[in-house]
Amino acid sequence: MEAEAVAKRPREDGAEGNGGGVSSMVEDGKAGDYISSVIPGWFSEMSPMWPGEAHSLKVEQILFQEKSQYQNVMVFQSSTYGKVLVLDGVIQVTERDECAYQEMITHLPLCSIPKPKKVLVIGGGDGGVLREVSRYSSVEVIDICEIDAMVVDVSKQFFPKLAVGFEDPRVNLHIGDGVAFLKNVPEGTYDAIIVDSSDPIGTEKQHPISNVIFSGKSSLSQRCCIWLHMHIIEDIVSICRQIFKGSVNYAWTSVPTYPSGVIGFMLCSTEGPVVDFQHPVNKIDECDSFNKEKGPLKFYNPEIHSAAFCLPSFAKKIIDSETR
Amino acid sequence: MEAEAVAKRPREDGAEGNGGGVSSMVEDGKAGDYISSVIPGWFSEMSPMWPGEAHSLKVEQILFQEKSQYQNVMVFQSSTYGKVLVLDGVIQVTERDECAYQEMITHLPLCSIPKPKKVLVIGGGDGGVLREVSRYSSVEVIDICEIDAMVVDVSKQFFPKLAVGFEDPRVNLHIGDGVAFLKNVPEGTYDAIIVDSSDPIGTEKQHPISNVIFSGKSSLSQRCCIWLHMHIIEDIVSICRQIFKGSVNYAWTSVPTYPSGVIGFMLCSTEGPVVDFQHPVNKIDECDSFNKEKGPLKFYNPEIHSAAFCLPSFAKKIIDSETR
Repeated sequence: MEAEAVAKRPREDGAEGNGGGVSSMVEDGKAGDYISSVIPGWFSEMSPMWPGEAHSLKVEQILFQEKSQYQNVMVFQSSTYGKVLVLDGVIQVTERDECAYQEMITHLPLCSIPKPKKVLVIGGGDGGVLREVSRYSSVEVIDICEIDAMVVDVSKQFFPKLAVGFEDPRVNLHIGDGVAFLKNVPEGTYDAIIVDSSDPIGTEKQHPISNVIFSGKSSLSQRCCIWLHMHIIEDIVSICRQIFKGSVNYAWTSVPTYPSGVIGFMLCSTEGPVVDFQHPVNKIDECDSFNKEKGPLKFYNPEIHSAAFCLPSFAKKIIDSETR
Repeated sequence: MEAEAVAKRPREDGAEGNGGGVSSMVEDGKAGDYISSVIPGWFSEMSPMWPGEAHSLKVEQILFQEKSQYQNVMVFQSSTYGKVLVLDGVIQVTERDECAYQEMITHLPLCSIPKPKKVLVIGGGDGGVLREVSRYSSVEVIDICEIDAMVVDVSKQFFPKLAVGFEDPRVNLHIGDGVAFLKNVPEGTYDAIIVDSSDPIGTEKQHPISNVIFSGKSSLSQRCCIWLHMHIIEDIVSICRQIFKGSVNYAWTSVPTYPSGVIGFMLCSTEGPVVDFQHPVNKIDECDSFNKEKGPLKFYNPEIHSAAFCLPSFAKKIIDSETR
């Protein structure tokens, strides 16, 4: 039995964020007061992955901006969402709402299996998922494979409440390619694999991790938002059904600064004892000293765990037909 | 027993939408590619109710723009969300995601009581809530009191899939002030009152409906988004506890084009048989001819009904302490 969760923070390899695709289309001169023609000093997230809409945050100060070997890395102080981490033009983390993402991507799988011991995180270089994994005293090993060392460094510099995850002595950080790492991992090594990385789907360049995931290794994939990418989700669910011989599930949660205000997770299990992801068997123990020292959970609880699997009818119809 | 639902599509009386509050704050010249300084041809929703953030939709064409006796009314064709209705600078409806709002604000209360017969809608001039109420064959009377005739006219002209709600012969449209209307309604007249109007709270000018609601009449109030307005929700829940002697509940749902991508509903009942809003007693009958002719529900189902009451820990803690 392995439980695996992958969520998506959509990013396009090779896309340059705001750089492209913005054009003037007003065909009526009477736009008047309501058409904003200038928003100076705001960061706007635009992408061909969610055409025709943009979410913008007011910028107080740019704190960091550099191009790593893999991507553009930016940190800015927003006026109302705290510090914000942006990779290739797409918001990854804001201090204000990161709790929803980090807690749900971690506890949906880890509360679904009894006493997880060995956990692998792919991506997740900001440390937030590590922080959540380290709430479990049953966990003995937390391996993380993040490709971009700059993300780790930037998080340690600007996001101490996320990067605190690296301080747990059970954590082993590997800087490198998740694909290469996974190739050397014997099947069954981990009780749970959490894939917290950018989205390989819907882009011209396939992200290499998807090749490993989809070539039959014991990993899964994820995705996307039911409001924007239902056709992609349908494909992924179908592929996961072929790969994972246990259960295949889709869950979602509210994260205001992600496109459409929600994000989705694929939760899949391999052969062995059935994993009923919707009904957590492993409640986070409030008395557990490992949990206590992290402070109380802000977002996750057992009720919202189960609720995350309840989908709108338009999505349920499609996903149910692909899951079992 | 009366069941009442109020949701909020936040709008500030007197606020001029984009007109105010946009200023340049970039303190670092290195903003580079990622700071969008110009978005011509996009509608951006900004408000002091959600400072420091803006959601923007690409405009294909402005279809209507006029000032009614009460507010600025605009309709535009967006490039990816269909037609959009904007009142005083705030998005009320988009064709793409209106199903979530209309179905949830209607079926959360109406599925919670057995065989609703008389229903009152306050606001809701676009007709979408009427469309949903008319799915119930048990309903004999649907009264609606909308203050702004222009909203009704504009909906009939541009949003036929919403305005279809007015075609039901059980519907009685009253154009007028909801406060005056409610004053002449004997308590117990309606099985359910659905308040689908703009937000009276958090603004300098108190919306007059709130005065009636809060002076002890059999209505309720609503609100807001847990990510942005937790302090306001806390106050409203506390006030509802004083007014409603039955149950007081908060539910939420995903609506991508509302601030933070979610909207909240207060669901309250008066004295009498207990209304357990979280566990619907009145499933919408798929064989009911009134329901069938409207086509299948897109968003609402019994599972998402119950899930809507499951809140993140940070919100649950505050709301539970105010509800019973």
